[in-house]
Amino acid sequence: MYNAILIIIGNEILSGRTEDKNINYIARKLNDNGVHLREIRVIPDISETIIDNIKNNKDKYNYVLTTGGIGPTHDDITSYSISLALDKKYVVNIDALKILEDYYGNHLNEARKKMAYMPEGAELICNPISKAPGFIIENIYVMAGVPKIMQAMLDEIIYKLRSSKSIYSKIITTDITEGDLAENIGEIQYKYSNIELGSYPLLSKTFFGTSIVFRGTDEKNIDLAMDEVKNIISLHNGKILNNNHYEI
Amino acid sequence: MYNAILIIIGNEILSGRTEDKNINYIARKLNDNGVHLREIRVIPDISETIIDNIKNNKDKYNYVLTTGGIGPTHDDITSYSISLALDKKYVVNIDALKILEDYYGNHLNEARKKMAYMPEGAELICNPISKAPGFIIENIYVMAGVPKIMQAMLDEIIYKLRSSKSIYSKIITTDITEGDLAENIGEIQYKYSNIELGSYPLLSKTFFGTSIVFRGTDEKNIDLAMDEVKNIISLHNGKILNNNHYEI
Repeated sequence: MYNAILIIIGNEILSGRTEDKNINYIARKLNDNGVHLREIRVIPDISETIIDNIKNNKDKYNYVLTTGGIGPTHDDITSYSISLALDKKYVVNIDALKILEDYYGNHLNEARKKMAYMPEGAELICNPISKAPGFIIENIYVMAGVPKIMQAMLDEIIYKLRSSKSIYSKIITTDITEGDLAENIGEIQYKYSNIELGSYPLLSKTFFGTSIVFRGTDEKNIDLAMDEVKNIISLHNGKILNNNHYEI
Repeated sequence: MYNAILIIIGNEILSGRTEDKNINYIARKLNDNGVHLREIRVIPDISETIIDNIKNNKDKYNYVLTTGGIGPTHDDITSYSISLALDKKYVVNIDALKILEDYYGNHLNEARKKMAYMPEGAELICNPISKAPGFIIENIYVMAGVPKIMQAMLDEIIYKLRSSKSIYSKIITTDITEGDLAENIGEIQYKYSNIELGSYPLLSKTFFGTSIVFRGTDEKNIDLAMDEVKNIISLHNGKILNNNHYEI
Protein backbone atom coordinates (compact mmCIF):
# COMPACT_ATOMS: atom_id res chain seq x y z
CA MET A 1 0.00 0.00 0.00
CA TYR A 2 1.37 3.40 -0.98
CA ASN A 3 1.73 6.13 1.62
CA ALA A 4 1.78 9.92 1.44
CA ILE A 5 2.44 13.15 3.28
CA LEU A 6 0.39 16.27 2.69
CA ILE A 7 2.20 19.58 3.02
CA ILE A 8 -0.06 22.62 3.19
CA ILE A 9 1.87 25.78 2.37
CA GLY A 10 0.13 28.86 3.68
CA ASN A 11 0.54 31.54 6.29
CA GLU A 12 -3.20 32.11 6.16
CA ILE A 13 -3.93 28.75 7.82
CA LEU A 14 -1.29 29.27 10.51
CA SER A 15 -2.55 32.76 11.33
CA GLY A 16 -6.11 31.47 11.56
CA ARG A 17 -7.38 33.89 8.96
CA THR A 18 -8.44 31.08 6.65
CA GLU A 19 -10.11 27.94 7.87
CA ASP A 20 -8.67 24.84 6.25
CA LYS A 21 -11.07 23.19 3.85
CA ASN A 22 -8.64 20.81 2.18
CA ILE A 23 -7.39 18.38 4.82
CA ASN A 24 -10.53 16.31 5.17
CA TYR A 25 -11.25 16.22 1.46
CA ILE A 26 -7.74 15.03 0.64
CA ALA A 27 -7.64 12.56 3.55
CA ARG A 28 -10.88 10.89 2.48
CA LYS A 29 -9.99 10.81 -1.20
CA LEU A 30 -6.61 9.21 -0.55
CA ASN A 31 -8.12 6.73 1.86
CA ASP A 32 -10.89 5.78 -0.58
CA ASN A 33 -8.25 5.11 -3.21
CA GLY A 34 -5.97 3.00 -1.10
CA VAL A 35 -3.29 5.58 -0.40
CA HIS A 36 -2.30 5.79 3.26
CA LEU A 37 -1.99 9.40 4.43
CA ARG A 38 0.66 9.20 7.14
CA GLU A 39 1.28 12.81 8.03
CA ILE A 40 0.05 16.35 7.41
CA ARG A 41 2.06 19.49 7.87
CA VAL A 42 1.02 23.10 7.65
CA ILE A 43 4.05 25.30 7.02
CA PRO A 44 4.58 29.00 6.32
CA ASP A 45 5.43 30.68 2.99
CA ILE A 46 9.16 30.60 3.74
CA SER A 47 11.41 29.20 1.05
CA GLU A 48 13.88 27.52 3.44
CA THR A 49 11.08 25.79 5.27
CA ILE A 50 9.51 24.52 2.05
CA ILE A 51 12.89 23.26 0.85
CA ASP A 52 13.60 21.46 4.13
CA ASN A 53 10.20 19.82 4.13
CA ILE A 54 10.53 18.58 0.57
CA LYS A 55 14.05 17.30 1.11
CA ASN A 56 13.24 15.56 4.38
CA ASN A 57 10.07 13.87 3.20
CA LYS A 58 10.46 12.94 -0.43
CA ASP A 59 12.37 9.75 0.31
CA LYS A 60 10.35 8.94 3.41
CA TYR A 61 6.99 8.67 1.65
CA ASN A 62 5.86 7.33 -1.73
CA TYR A 63 4.09 10.59 -2.47
CA VAL A 64 4.47 14.17 -1.32
CA LEU A 65 1.36 16.26 -1.99
CA THR A 66 1.50 20.02 -1.60
CA THR A 67 -1.18 22.68 -1.72
CA GLY A 68 -0.79 26.43 -1.99
CA GLY A 69 1.71 28.99 -3.15
CA ILE A 70 1.48 28.58 -6.93
CA GLY A 71 -0.29 31.84 -7.81
CA PRO A 72 1.10 35.07 -9.28
CA THR A 73 2.02 37.04 -6.14
CA HIS A 74 5.26 37.66 -4.25
CA ASP A 75 4.34 35.10 -1.59
CA ASP A 76 3.76 32.31 -4.13
CA ILE A 77 7.12 30.62 -3.85
CA THR A 78 6.27 26.93 -3.91
CA SER A 79 7.43 26.17 -7.47
CA TYR A 80 10.68 28.04 -7.01
CA SER A 81 11.38 26.40 -3.66
CA ILE A 82 10.67 22.90 -4.97
CA SER A 83 13.04 23.53 -7.87
CA LEU A 84 15.76 24.38 -5.37
CA ALA A 85 14.93 21.43 -3.14
CA LEU A 86 15.32 19.03 -6.08
CA ASP A 87 18.33 20.84 -7.51
CA LYS A 88 16.48 21.37 -10.78
CA LYS A 89 16.36 24.44 -12.99
CA TYR A 90 13.41 26.79 -12.46
CA VAL A 91 12.24 27.33 -16.04
CA VAL A 92 9.25 28.33 -18.15
CA ASN A 93 7.11 25.30 -18.95
CA ILE A 94 6.11 25.82 -22.60
CA ASP A 95 2.78 24.00 -22.26
CA ALA A 96 1.87 25.97 -19.17
CA LEU A 97 2.82 29.23 -20.88
CA LYS A 98 0.60 28.32 -23.84
CA ILE A 99 -2.36 27.70 -21.52
CA LEU A 100 -1.82 31.05 -19.83
CA GLU A 101 -1.41 32.86 -23.16
CA ASP A 102 -4.68 31.37 -24.46
CA TYR A 103 -6.49 32.27 -21.28
CA TYR A 104 -5.16 35.72 -20.46
CA GLY A 105 -4.37 37.05 -23.92
CA ASN A 106 -3.25 40.66 -23.56
CA HIS A 107 -3.62 40.47 -19.80
CA LEU A 108 -0.73 38.02 -19.42
CA ASN A 109 1.60 40.27 -17.47
CA GLU A 110 4.90 39.33 -15.81
CA ALA A 111 3.24 38.37 -12.52
CA ARG A 112 0.89 35.93 -14.23
CA LYS A 113 3.69 34.55 -16.39
CA LYS A 114 5.32 33.43 -13.15
CA MET A 115 2.64 30.72 -12.99
CA ALA A 116 4.32 29.02 -15.98
CA TYR A 117 7.65 28.70 -14.15
CA MET A 118 8.33 25.25 -12.71
CA PRO A 119 11.13 22.81 -12.08
CA GLU A 120 12.54 21.54 -15.39
CA GLY A 121 10.79 18.35 -16.48
CA ALA A 122 7.53 18.97 -14.64
CA GLU A 123 4.35 17.30 -15.92
CA LEU A 124 1.26 19.53 -15.75
CA ILE A 125 -1.87 19.02 -13.65
CA CYS A 126 -4.87 20.53 -15.40
CA ASN A 127 -6.78 23.41 -13.75
CA PRO A 128 -10.26 23.50 -15.29
CA ILE A 129 -11.36 26.48 -13.18
CA SER A 130 -8.79 29.23 -13.45
CA LYS A 131 -6.36 27.54 -15.89
CA ALA A 132 -2.95 28.06 -14.20
CA PRO A 133 -1.81 24.44 -13.85
CA GLY A 134 -0.29 22.48 -10.99
CA PHE A 135 2.51 20.03 -11.70
CA ILE A 136 4.15 16.72 -10.91
CA ILE A 137 7.89 16.41 -10.49
CA GLU A 138 9.41 13.14 -9.30
CA ASN A 139 7.07 11.94 -6.51
CA ILE A 140 5.88 15.46 -5.65
CA TYR A 141 2.37 16.59 -6.61
CA VAL A 142 1.93 20.35 -6.50
CA MET A 143 -1.64 21.66 -6.30
CA ALA A 144 -3.36 24.99 -5.78
CA GLY A 145 -4.65 25.94 -2.34
CA VAL A 146 -8.08 27.27 -3.36
CA PRO A 147 -10.37 24.35 -2.44
CA LYS A 148 -12.34 24.07 -5.67
CA ILE A 149 -9.20 24.15 -7.79
CA MET A 150 -7.37 21.74 -5.47
CA GLN A 151 -10.29 19.32 -5.68
CA ALA A 152 -10.27 19.35 -9.47
CA MET A 153 -6.51 18.77 -9.48
CA LEU A 154 -6.74 15.94 -6.94
CA ASP A 155 -9.50 14.31 -9.01
CA GLU A 156 -7.03 14.20 -11.85
CA ILE A 157 -3.98 12.91 -10.02
CA ILE A 158 -5.74 10.35 -7.86
CA TYR A 159 -5.50 7.88 -10.75
CA LYS A 160 -1.76 8.29 -10.93
CA LEU A 161 -1.41 7.84 -7.21
CA ARG A 162 -3.19 4.58 -7.14
CA SER A 163 -1.98 2.88 -10.32
CA SER A 164 0.93 2.66 -12.71
CA LYS A 165 -1.04 2.94 -15.96
CA SER A 166 -1.00 6.04 -18.15
CA ILE A 167 -3.84 8.38 -17.46
CA TYR A 168 -5.35 10.51 -20.18
CA SER A 169 -7.00 13.79 -19.31
CA LYS A 170 -8.89 15.87 -21.87
CA ILE A 171 -11.17 18.83 -21.52
CA ILE A 172 -14.12 20.53 -23.23
CA THR A 173 -15.22 24.03 -22.29
CA THR A 174 -18.58 25.50 -23.19
CA ASP A 175 -20.81 28.48 -22.50
CA ILE A 176 -23.63 26.20 -21.33
CA THR A 177 -24.01 26.09 -17.53
CA GLU A 178 -23.50 22.96 -15.46
CA GLY A 179 -27.13 22.62 -14.49
CA ASP A 180 -28.26 22.45 -18.11
CA LEU A 181 -25.80 19.71 -18.95
CA ALA A 182 -25.89 17.71 -15.75
CA GLU A 183 -28.48 15.11 -16.76
CA ASN A 184 -26.89 14.27 -20.10
CA ILE A 185 -23.42 14.24 -18.64
CA GLY A 186 -24.67 11.82 -16.02
CA GLU A 187 -25.97 9.48 -18.72
CA ILE A 188 -22.73 9.66 -20.66
CA GLN A 189 -20.76 8.94 -17.46
CA TYR A 190 -23.02 5.91 -16.87
CA LYS A 191 -22.40 4.62 -20.39
CA TYR A 192 -18.62 5.06 -20.22
CA SER A 193 -18.11 3.75 -16.74
CA ASN A 194 -14.39 3.03 -17.07
CA ILE A 195 -13.52 6.69 -17.45
CA GLU A 196 -14.34 9.58 -15.15
CA LEU A 197 -16.20 12.70 -16.20
CA GLY A 198 -15.75 15.76 -14.03
CA SER A 199 -17.89 18.85 -14.37
CA TYR A 200 -16.62 22.18 -13.08
CA PRO A 201 -18.16 25.62 -13.15
CA LEU A 202 -16.26 28.10 -15.25
CA LEU A 203 -16.36 31.66 -13.98
CA SER A 204 -15.68 34.53 -16.28
CA LYS A 205 -16.31 38.22 -15.89
CA THR A 206 -19.38 38.12 -18.05
CA PHE A 207 -20.99 34.67 -17.84
CA PHE A 208 -21.06 31.20 -16.39
CA GLY A 209 -19.98 28.15 -18.34
CA THR A 210 -18.71 24.65 -17.76
CA SER A 211 -15.49 22.72 -18.14
CA ILE A 212 -15.97 19.00 -18.59
CA VAL A 213 -12.90 16.94 -17.86
CA PHE A 214 -12.48 13.36 -19.09
CA ARG A 215 -10.00 11.13 -17.33
CA GLY A 216 -8.99 7.54 -17.46
CA THR A 217 -6.68 4.98 -19.00
CA ASP A 218 -8.96 4.17 -21.96
CA GLU A 219 -8.24 6.91 -24.50
CA LYS A 220 -10.63 5.50 -27.08
CA ASN A 221 -13.57 5.72 -24.71
CA ILE A 222 -12.53 9.20 -23.68
CA ASP A 223 -12.72 10.32 -27.32
CA LEU A 224 -16.11 8.61 -27.82
CA ALA A 225 -17.49 10.24 -24.67
CA MET A 226 -16.15 13.61 -25.79
CA ASP A 227 -17.98 13.29 -29.11
CA GLU A 228 -21.21 12.62 -27.25
CA VAL A 229 -20.71 15.62 -24.99
CA LYS A 230 -20.03 17.82 -28.01
CA ASN A 231 -23.32 16.64 -29.54
CA ILE A 232 -25.20 17.47 -26.35
CA ILE A 233 -23.68 20.95 -26.30
CA SER A 234 -24.76 21.60 -29.87
CA LEU A 235 -28.28 20.33 -29.07
CA HIS A 236 -28.36 23.08 -26.44
CA ASN A 237 -27.14 25.58 -29.05
CA GLY A 238 -23.99 25.95 -27.01
CA LYS A 239 -20.52 26.73 -28.19
CA ILE A 240 -17.37 24.71 -27.71
CA LEU A 241 -15.06 27.40 -26.51
CA ASN A 242 -11.50 28.13 -27.08
CA ASN A 243 -9.82 29.19 -23.90
CA ASN A 244 -8.91 32.58 -25.27
CA HIS A 245 -12.52 33.70 -25.08
CA TYR A 246 -11.99 34.14 -21.40
CA GLU A 247 -10.66 37.01 -19.47
CA ILE A 248 -10.63 36.83 -15.76
CA MET B 1 7.52 37.39 20.03
CA TYR B 2 6.93 33.80 21.11
CA ASN B 3 6.35 31.05 18.61
CA ALA B 4 4.68 27.64 18.74
CA ILE B 5 4.08 24.38 16.95
CA LEU B 6 0.79 22.52 17.18
CA ILE B 7 0.96 18.70 17.01
CA ILE B 8 -2.37 16.99 16.45
CA ILE B 9 -2.17 13.34 17.43
CA GLY B 10 -4.89 11.31 15.77
CA ASN B 11 -5.34 8.62 13.14
CA GLU B 12 -8.94 9.74 12.71
CA ILE B 13 -7.88 13.03 11.09
CA LEU B 14 -5.39 11.30 8.78
CA SER B 15 -7.92 8.72 7.62
CA GLY B 16 -10.51 11.42 6.97
CA ARG B 17 -13.00 9.81 9.33
CA THR B 18 -13.05 12.91 11.55
CA GLU B 19 -12.99 16.45 10.26
CA ASP B 20 -10.57 18.65 12.15
CA LYS B 21 -12.26 21.33 14.22
CA ASN B 22 -9.29 22.46 16.27
CA ILE B 23 -6.75 23.97 13.91
CA ASN B 24 -8.55 27.20 13.16
CA TYR B 25 -9.67 27.77 16.75
CA ILE B 26 -6.15 27.32 18.07
CA ALA B 27 -4.55 29.35 15.26
CA ARG B 28 -6.85 32.32 15.87
CA LYS B 29 -6.51 32.18 19.64
CA LEU B 30 -2.72 32.10 19.50
CA ASN B 31 -2.61 34.88 16.95
CA ASP B 32 -4.99 37.05 18.96
CA ASN B 33 -2.72 36.62 21.94
CA GLY B 34 0.54 37.42 20.22
CA VAL B 35 1.87 33.89 19.86
CA HIS B 36 3.16 33.10 16.39
CA LEU B 37 1.99 29.66 15.27
CA ARG B 38 4.80 28.54 12.98
CA GLU B 39 3.85 24.98 12.09
CA ILE B 40 1.09 22.40 12.45
CA ARG B 41 1.55 18.67 12.17
CA VAL B 42 -1.01 15.91 12.16
CA ILE B 43 0.60 12.61 13.15
CA PRO B 44 -0.68 9.09 13.82
CA ASP B 45 -1.09 7.34 17.19
CA ILE B 46 2.32 5.73 16.99
CA SER B 47 4.56 6.10 20.02
CA GLU B 48 7.82 6.40 18.08
CA THR B 49 6.36 9.12 15.87
CA ILE B 50 5.12 11.09 18.87
CA ILE B 51 8.49 10.76 20.59
CA ASP B 52 10.38 11.91 17.47
CA ASN B 53 8.10 14.89 17.02
CA ILE B 54 8.46 16.00 20.64
CA LYS B 55 12.23 15.57 20.65
CA ASN B 56 12.73 17.34 17.33
CA ASN B 57 10.53 20.32 18.09
CA LYS B 58 10.79 21.14 21.77
CA ASP B 59 13.99 23.12 21.37
CA LYS B 60 12.98 24.59 18.05
CA TYR B 61 9.89 26.43 19.28
CA ASN B 62 9.01 28.28 22.48
CA TYR B 63 5.89 26.20 22.90
CA VAL B 64 4.78 22.77 21.76
CA LEU B 65 1.02 22.30 21.93
CA THR B 66 -0.47 18.85 21.47
CA THR B 67 -4.05 17.66 21.15
CA GLY B 68 -5.41 14.15 21.38
CA GLY B 69 -4.45 10.80 22.82
CA ILE B 70 -5.00 11.44 26.54
CA GLY B 71 -8.15 9.36 27.08
CA PRO B 72 -8.59 5.92 28.64
CA THR B 73 -8.26 3.64 25.60
CA HIS B 74 -5.40 1.52 24.25
CA ASP B 75 -4.58 4.05 21.54
CA ASP B 76 -4.26 6.94 24.01
CA ILE B 77 -0.49 6.96 24.24
CA THR B 78 0.36 10.65 24.27
CA SER B 79 1.27 10.98 27.97
CA TYR B 80 3.37 7.82 27.95
CA SER B 81 5.17 8.82 24.77
CA ILE B 82 5.92 12.33 26.02
CA SER B 83 7.36 10.86 29.24
CA LEU B 84 9.72 8.76 27.12
CA ALA B 85 10.60 11.69 24.86
CA LEU B 86 11.62 13.78 27.88
CA ASP B 87 13.26 10.88 29.66
CA LYS B 88 10.96 11.36 32.63
CA LYS B 89 9.19 8.76 34.76
CA TYR B 90 5.61 7.97 33.76
CA VAL B 91 3.84 8.17 37.15
CA VAL B 92 0.47 8.73 38.79
CA ASN B 93 -0.15 12.42 39.34
CA ILE B 94 -1.74 12.59 42.78
CA ASP B 95 -3.81 15.69 42.03
CA ALA B 96 -5.10 14.19 38.79
CA LEU B 97 -6.00 10.95 40.56
CA LYS B 98 -7.92 12.91 43.19
CA ILE B 99 -9.92 14.70 40.49
CA LEU B 100 -10.79 11.37 38.81
CA GLU B 101 -11.71 9.73 42.13
CA ASP B 102 -14.05 12.59 42.98
CA TYR B 103 -15.64 12.48 39.56
CA TYR B 104 -15.92 8.75 38.86
CA GLY B 105 -16.30 7.36 42.39
CA ASN B 106 -16.91 3.62 42.10
CA HIS B 107 -16.63 3.82 38.34
CA LEU B 108 -12.94 4.65 38.42
CA ASN B 109 -11.63 1.50 36.75
CA GLU B 110 -8.07 0.79 35.62
CA ALA B 111 -8.63 2.22 32.14
CA ARG B 112 -9.83 5.53 33.57
CA LYS B 113 -7.03 5.59 36.13
CA LYS B 114 -4.63 5.68 33.19
CA MET B 115 -5.74 9.28 32.70
CA ALA B 116 -3.90 10.19 35.93
CA TYR B 117 -0.56 8.92 34.58
CA MET B 118 1.77 11.62 33.32
CA PRO B 119 5.43 12.53 33.13
CA GLU B 120 6.78 13.19 36.64
CA GLY B 121 6.54 16.89 37.55
CA ALA B 122 3.61 17.72 35.26
CA GLU B 123 1.38 20.69 36.08
CA LEU B 124 -2.33 20.10 35.44
CA ILE B 125 -4.56 21.85 32.92
CA CYS B 126 -8.13 21.93 34.20
CA ASN B 127 -10.86 20.13 32.26
CA PRO B 128 -14.19 21.69 33.21
CA ILE B 129 -16.15 19.36 30.94
CA SER B 130 -15.12 15.76 31.58
CA LYS B 131 -12.60 16.32 34.35
CA ALA B 132 -9.62 14.23 33.12
CA PRO B 133 -6.97 16.94 33.02
CA GLY B 134 -4.37 17.90 30.45
CA PHE B 135 -0.92 18.89 31.60
CA ILE B 136 2.12 21.07 31.10
CA ILE B 137 5.65 19.66 31.24
CA GLU B 138 8.59 21.86 30.37
CA ASN B 139 7.42 23.83 27.30
CA ILE B 140 4.90 21.18 26.22
CA TYR B 141 1.17 21.79 26.63
CA VAL B 142 -0.87 18.60 26.37
CA MET B 143 -4.57 19.00 25.64
CA ALA B 144 -7.51 16.76 24.81
CA GLY B 145 -8.61 16.31 21.19
CA VAL B 146 -12.35 16.71 21.71
CA PRO B 147 -13.00 20.27 20.54
CA LYS B 148 -15.04 21.55 23.49
CA ILE B 149 -12.58 20.19 26.00
CA MET B 150 -9.58 21.42 24.01
CA GLN B 151 -11.14 24.89 23.86
CA ALA B 152 -11.63 25.02 27.60
CA MET B 153 -8.05 23.91 28.15
CA LEU B 154 -6.68 26.44 25.69
CA ASP B 155 -8.68 29.21 27.33
CA GLU B 156 -6.86 28.36 30.53
CA ILE B 157 -3.31 28.14 29.20
CA ILE B 158 -3.49 31.05 26.78
CA TYR B 159 -2.61 33.42 29.63
CA LYS B 160 0.58 31.50 30.26
CA LEU B 161 1.49 31.51 26.59
CA ARG B 162 0.86 35.04 25.57
CA SER B 163 3.59 37.51 25.01
CA SER B 164 3.65 41.20 25.60
CA LYS B 165 3.24 42.53 22.08
CA SER B 166 -0.04 42.61 20.24
CA ILE B 167 -0.23 41.42 16.66
CA TYR B 168 -2.31 43.58 14.37
CA SER B 169 -4.10 42.06 11.43
CA LYS B 170 -5.91 44.24 8.89
CA ILE B 171 -7.40 43.51 5.54
CA ILE B 172 -8.30 45.18 2.26
CA THR B 173 -10.52 43.46 -0.28
CA THR B 174 -10.91 44.61 -3.84
CA ASP B 175 -12.43 43.57 -7.14
CA ILE B 176 -9.03 43.78 -8.85
CA THR B 177 -7.47 40.36 -9.44
CA GLU B 178 -4.23 39.18 -7.84
CA GLY B 179 -2.29 39.15 -11.08
CA ASP B 180 -2.95 42.82 -11.72
CA LEU B 181 -1.78 43.82 -8.24
CA ALA B 182 1.04 41.35 -7.74
CA GLU B 183 3.92 43.48 -8.89
CA ASN B 184 2.94 46.54 -6.83
CA ILE B 185 2.13 44.48 -3.76
CA GLY B 186 5.56 42.89 -4.02
CA GLU B 187 7.15 46.35 -4.03
CA ILE B 188 5.14 47.47 -1.03
CA GLN B 189 6.10 44.29 0.87
CA TYR B 190 9.74 45.02 0.07
CA LYS B 191 9.42 48.57 1.39
CA TYR B 192 7.65 47.59 4.64
CA SER B 193 9.76 44.58 5.50
CA ASN B 194 8.85 44.43 9.20
CA ILE B 195 5.23 43.61 8.45
CA GLU B 196 3.82 40.75 6.46
CA LEU B 197 1.62 41.17 3.40
CA GLY B 198 -0.42 38.22 2.21
CA SER B 199 -2.35 38.17 -1.03
CA TYR B 200 -5.27 35.77 -1.48
CA PRO B 201 -7.59 35.21 -4.42
CA LEU B 202 -11.20 36.03 -3.73
CA LEU B 203 -13.70 33.97 -5.66
CA SER B 204 -17.29 35.07 -5.67
CA LYS B 205 -20.06 33.67 -7.80
CA THR B 206 -19.76 36.49 -10.26
CA PHE B 207 -16.16 37.67 -10.31
CA PHE B 208 -12.59 37.31 -9.10
CA GLY B 209 -10.95 39.71 -6.68
CA THR B 210 -8.21 39.88 -4.07
CA SER B 211 -7.87 40.08 -0.30
CA ILE B 212 -4.67 41.65 0.93
CA VAL B 213 -3.85 40.95 4.57
CA PHE B 214 -1.40 43.02 6.63
CA ARG B 215 0.03 41.50 9.79
CA GLY B 216 2.64 42.54 12.30
CA THR B 217 3.35 44.34 15.55
CA ASP B 218 4.03 47.72 13.90
CA GLU B 219 0.57 49.18 13.47
CA LYS B 220 1.87 52.42 12.01
CA ASN B 221 3.63 50.67 9.17
CA ILE B 222 0.57 48.51 8.57
CA ASP B 223 -1.50 51.65 8.11
CA LEU B 224 1.08 53.23 5.81
CA ALA B 225 1.28 50.09 3.69
CA MET B 226 -2.50 49.93 3.55
CA ASP B 227 -2.64 53.48 2.23
CA GLU B 228 -0.21 52.55 -0.52
CA VAL B 229 -2.23 49.49 -1.49
CA LYS B 230 -5.39 51.60 -1.58
CA ASN B 231 -3.66 54.01 -3.96
CA ILE B 232 -2.62 51.15 -6.22
CA ILE B 233 -6.19 49.86 -6.29
CA SER B 234 -7.56 53.22 -7.26
CA LEU B 235 -4.93 53.56 -10.00
CA HIS B 236 -6.41 50.33 -11.38
CA ASN B 237 -9.91 51.83 -11.11
CA GLY B 238 -10.71 49.19 -8.54
CA LYS B 239 -13.09 49.28 -5.62
CA ILE B 240 -12.34 48.68 -1.94
CA LEU B 241 -14.95 46.13 -0.94
CA ASN B 242 -16.66 45.21 2.25
CA ASN B 243 -15.59 41.71 3.31
CA ASN B 244 -18.94 40.58 4.43
CA HIS B 245 -20.27 40.49 0.94
CA TYR B 246 -17.86 37.83 -0.23
CA GLU B 247 -17.30 34.15 -0.01
CA ILE B 248 -13.88 32.65 -0.56
